[in-house]
Amino acid sequence: MTSGTTSTPTPTPTPTPVTVLGLGPMGRALATAFAAAGHPTTVWNRTPGKGAGLDATVAATAAEASAASPLVVVCVINHEAVRSVLDPEALRGRTLVNLTGGSPRHARETARWAEEHGVGYLDGVIMTPVGGPDAVVLYSGSAEVHGAHEATLAALGGTPTHVGEDPGRAAAFNMSLLDFFWTSMFGVVHAFRLASAEGVAPGELGGYARAMSGLLPGMIDAVAAHVSAGHFPGDESSLDSAASLLDDVLATVRANGLDDAMLAAGRAAVRRAVDAGHGAEGFTRLAAP
Amino acid sequence: MTSGTTSTPTPTPTPTPVTVLGLGPMGRALATAFAAAGHPTTVWNRTPGKGAGLDATVAATAAEASAASPLVVVCVINHEAVRSVLDPEALRGRTLVNLTGGSPRHARETARWAEEHGVGYLDGVIMTPVGGPDAVVLYSGSAEVHGAHEATLAALGGTPTHVGEDPGRAAAFNMSLLDFFWTSMFGVVHAFRLASAEGVAPGELGGYARAMSGLLPGMIDAVAAHVSAGHFPGDESSLDSAASLLDDVLATVRANGLDDAMLAAGRAAVRRAVDAGHGAEGFTRLAAP
Ligand SMILES: NC(=O)c1ccc[n+]([C@@H]2O[C@H](COP(=O)([O-])OP(=O)(O)OC[C@H]3O[C@@H](n4cnc5c(N)ncnc54)[C@H](OP(=O)(O)O)[C@@H]3O)[C@@H](O)[C@H]2O)c1
Ligand SMILES: NC(=O)c1ccc[n+]([C@@H]2O[C@H](COP(=O)([O-])OP(=O)(O)OC[C@H]3O[C@@H](n4cnc5c(N)ncnc54)[C@H](OP(=O)(O)O)[C@@H]3O)[C@@H](O)[C@H]2O)c1
Repeated sequence: MTSGTTSTPTPTPTPTPVTVLGLGPMGRALATAFAAAGHPTTVWNRTPGKGAGLDATVAATAAEASAASPLVVVCVINHEAVRSVLDPEALRGRTLVNLTGGSPRHARETARWAEEHGVGYLDGVIMTPVGGPDAVVLYSGSAEVHGAHEATLAALGGTPTHVGEDPGRAAAFNMSLLDFFWTSMFGVVHAFRLASAEGVAPGELGGYARAMSGLLPGMIDAVAAHVSAGHFPGDESSLDSAASLLDDVLATVRANGLDDAMLAAGRAAVRRAVDAGHGAEGFTRLAAP
Repeated sequence: MTSGTTSTPTPTPTPTPVTVLGLGPMGRALATAFAAAGHPTTVWNRTPGKGAGLDATVAATAAEASAASPLVVVCVINHEAVRSVLDPEALRGRTLVNLTGGSPRHARETARWAEEHGVGYLDGVIMTPVGGPDAVVLYSGSAEVHGAHEATLAALGGTPTHVGEDPGRAAAFNMSLLDFFWTSMFGVVHAFRLASAEGVAPGELGGYARAMSGLLPGMIDAVAAHVSAGHFPGDESSLDSAASLLDDVLATVRANGLDDAMLAAGRAAVRRAVDAGHGAEGFTRLAAP
């Protein structure tokens, strides 16, 4: 402002009050992000005491917490827990954003429940940790409701992305991505067990496992491209070659007395593809719908 | 060289001749890398015609190819194929580097065979694509043999790394890393199938799957640290929470009629850990030896 002039300050819009139901690790991260962005934040958790240390008002009941804000975020362990904390009277006329992980069917059921009770609804999934600029949170359900709350949801970091009017669509992305993520994590923990059994220490394996994980983005691109093209070239590595190597990994796992169920299931999928005549094609063949 | 002076040029050591047995995608990459580094290269493949386009001499038999160089690299589909191409008379007094993927037991067997026949032996595993500066190739077996051929093996890119005198040790790293890699790849292809079934196109899923894969290096570090410390904190995410989410993924997979065997096997491993009282600990608990 130039000195000597006077002006009426532009009124800063008051950030929308937000309620967070559920204070597990993720609920706490959500409440922290909303409060840090200046939103008056109200929290509630089934077991008392979890609101300690948060810059938020702790409500005594879920209903009281829901009545405190026009935007209510629920993030508890699962669908059954979601349904047990929602109070239709307290939520009527407000918007509910469900960031609890679940199936598309669950999302659609909760959306129907919300509609029946006059509650605006968005289903969302947290793909990567909230708070930072790289946070990925996907939403589905009414684009209008999403548009109305986009600015508030931006407090979670990254860009709130709307992936469709079908309230189950964000969950469909989530289930597919978690299918990949959890399966990979099972591979990670199993690899460390196999290494330990073979006398390779965690610190020795870690760096190479990291390097190996660096191959996955390229493989993901290859799978996406091959599925889109309906063509699964085996010129860099074939299913026949993978089958042989998998037999060696399985034999090593069994020789060490470790659980072989996941790899055996994968080996069976490769066998079916080879038996169907795809042995000279690439591994990406297994992604064919 | 300063103009006007004369000098005897320092003789450049002639690069060691190298033979490559097996010209699948990897054998061809190896032959290409050796030839590019100036090594006179001889190649052989069971099915003729695979040497076309390589800067190498094509031998008519594996024995003839083996006799052509002091260093012989074998890279075929598996252990049985390795044993079928090795000619003890042609290899006597030379060094054999086995870059065929296999179990530690296979590596030790081939090392014993080599010793019995007066053949120097190194077992190696190719972790990431050869040729570039980031190539990772691990070797085990005699450190003396490794030292003698390190300069030649450097043609494959990166730094040739010796991980132990036990010839099975490189294979132990390989089996553990492939346990992770293949399990993850099964997760990738299954995720694309689930997405397709749920109406999410490959191109829509790919970018998010890439972002998800970016979480793995941090998870790998966490697993290595937790296993080393014997402590598996669940303060960011618990096994109980994972179990619930996995049930949702499994229900979605089953609702779409897809193969649920891998995830069901993983879910069973989580159940065993929860039943043993570890539900409040982190997922990394599953890596405890
Ligand atoms: N943590 C992550 O990294 C992450 C990442 C992405 C998505 N998510 C998703 O975010 C959601 C929350 O995860 P989280 O890790 O924060 O914690 P969580 O361990 O999945 O859930 C703990 C929360 O659920 C509440 N809860 C459990 N059963 C309940 C019931 N019957 N009624 C009411 N509340 C109940 C707990 O309350 P009490 O304290 O009373 O037990 C606590 O607030 C999950 O759906 C998860 O899949 C988590
Ligand atoms: N491709 C990769 O990305 C990669 C990465 C790391 C490690 N590796 C490892 O490198 C090795 C070779 O892999 P690759 O992808 O190049 O090819 P591959 O498909 O695993 O193997 C093909 C090679 O094996 C030969 N072969 C198969 N059966 C044989 C037999 N009974 N006798 C003699 N030769 C036989 C083939 O000869 P014909 O042409 O006559 O069939 C061909 O030369 C494998 O152990 C693999 O695990 C590969």
